[in-house]
Amino acid sequence: MITHQMLSQHPRPFKSLDTLVACVDACLECEQCCVSCADACLGEQQLDMLRRCIRLNLDCADVCATTARMLSRQTEPEWELSRAQLDACRIACQICAEECDGHADHHEHCRTCADCCHRCAEACERLLSSVHEGVA
Amino acid sequence: MITHQMLSQHPRPFKSLDTLVACVDACLECEQCCVSCADACLGEQQLDMLRRCIRLNLDCADVCATTARMLSRQTEPEWELSRAQLDACRIACQICAEECDGHADHHEHCRTCADCCHRCAEACERLLSSVHEGVA
Amino acid sequence: MITHQMLSQHPRPFKSLDTLVACVDACLECEQCCVSCADACLGEQQLDMLRRCIRLNLDCADVCATTARMLSRQTEPEWELSRAQLDACRIACQICAEECDGHADHHEHCRTCADCCHRCAEACERLLSSVHEGVA
Amino acid sequence: MITHQMLSQHPRPFKSLDTLVACVDACLECEQCCVSCADACLGEQQLDMLRRCIRLNLDCADVCATTARMLSRQTEPEWELSRAQLDACRIACQICAEECDGHADHHEHCRTCADCCHRCAEACERLLSSVHEGVA
Repeated sequence: MITHQMLSQHPRPFKSLDTLVACVDACLECEQCCVSCADACLGEQQLDMLRRCIRLNLDCADVCATTARMLSRQTEPEWELSRAQLDACRIACQICAEECDGHADHHEHCRTCADCCHRCAEACERLLSSVHEGVA
Repeated sequence: MITHQMLSQHPRPFKSLDTLVACVDACLECEQCCVSCADACLGEQQLDMLRRCIRLNLDCADVCATTARMLSRQTEPEWELSRAQLDACRIACQICAEECDGHADHHEHCRTCADCCHRCAEACERLLSSVHEGVA
Repeated sequence: MITHQMLSQHPRPFKSLDTLVACVDACLECEQCCVSCADACLGEQQLDMLRRCIRLNLDCADVCATTARMLSRQTEPEWELSRAQLDACRIACQICAEECDGHADHHEHCRTCADCCHRCAEACERLLSSVHEGVA
Repeated sequence: MITHQMLSQHPRPFKSLDTLVACVDACLECEQCCVSCADACLGEQQLDMLRRCIRLNLDCADVCATTARMLSRQTEPEWELSRAQLDACRIACQICAEECDGHADHHEHCRTCADCCHRCAEACERLLSSVHEGVA
């Protein structure tokens, strides 16, 4: 991903650029994982016990996509809104990670997706801290 | 919109269905308004003072889209996540409404969009109350 | 929906405005129907035979969302691109309608969604004709 | 990105997996570049001549997002639809690349975005060939 290059070439770049870029990339990766995991679940034989996993994957994918887009915008930022969206993203990733963890022994895609969601939840938390401390 | 018909035909429909449907429809309407207002702003002669309006329109459109999708899902709901996303949506709509209100005297599309955002913020708040009271 | 109001207040509005507005609204309605139908399918007992329906619903929802956004933009339009996206949307709606039709006897949400997809496919076709004839 | 890992862990993986993964990753990268370039343009002093660039960036971002999602799904694929969406994506990337190329001397973000769009157009074309040849 060349997110760092793009965001650093903005006329008014963000101060904690590395934390921001890490979060955008984590959100994009997590969106892809969740779309992919929902679809892999849909192709499994034992579909019945994967309902909740598919549903949460779909939610998490949408939330991550919106968060990545909002964070990619550096013109006239509104941190009250970014914080709220980051918070929703952190929660979506945590809940989805827990659900996927429960299927990790049976489905490798769930294990990979759980790791992805954990990483994204952490990236959101780090950016939230950085924004709260006002170093952003 | 036939959102009410779709959501009522779900095998496990939501209790406060009218409040839910009103919020989904308000989010979809607001997404369209914000995409449209950003683009109308982009076509205006006095583009310079519309930067913040365009940016907030784009954020609001993305947040509304994700909120509408999450709320349209009634299988295995996770209200902690829905509340967080509804909160981000309420904030996005309020901030965008305030910005658009400031341009309403010069641009009719900003006036229409501000009304749209106000309605969506209220619909989110009503659904949040209904969820908090546990009647959902 | 107040799509007509928004699109008519654009500084450079589209000529065949009614056909355009009808298509934007059909796409938004179809996105909601497909997100909702995928989730309703996920809540059904006989989930096994709904795999293809869920998958096509998800594709159709994403394609409709992107088409609605592109068509809502009237600044510097690129009709070669709009035509290609409208064509993808028409195909997505047709394939999804056929699949949902096959489940209409068992699931009312599939019947409603099939009607929605048929309407959207027709709205895309009408706009495509209007664009091809150059009256746009 | 761990797209390759996710897509290879699908219960029914795609034959030309490398070509598919390359295209999904190119679409996600291009979505991020286009969202970011639209926003960087919005922060530039000479905004007036960047209208078309912003508009095409927004279209390209949406088309790439939908294409990445559709291609990430391997359950019950419908290649007629995938081909049409890939074609729209290829066109979106080409038009956006040409526009961004025209601003590359003045704005580094436009140069980076143009490269990104060119790469994505090529990845779409390669996948389209692979699908047409029936090796998929």
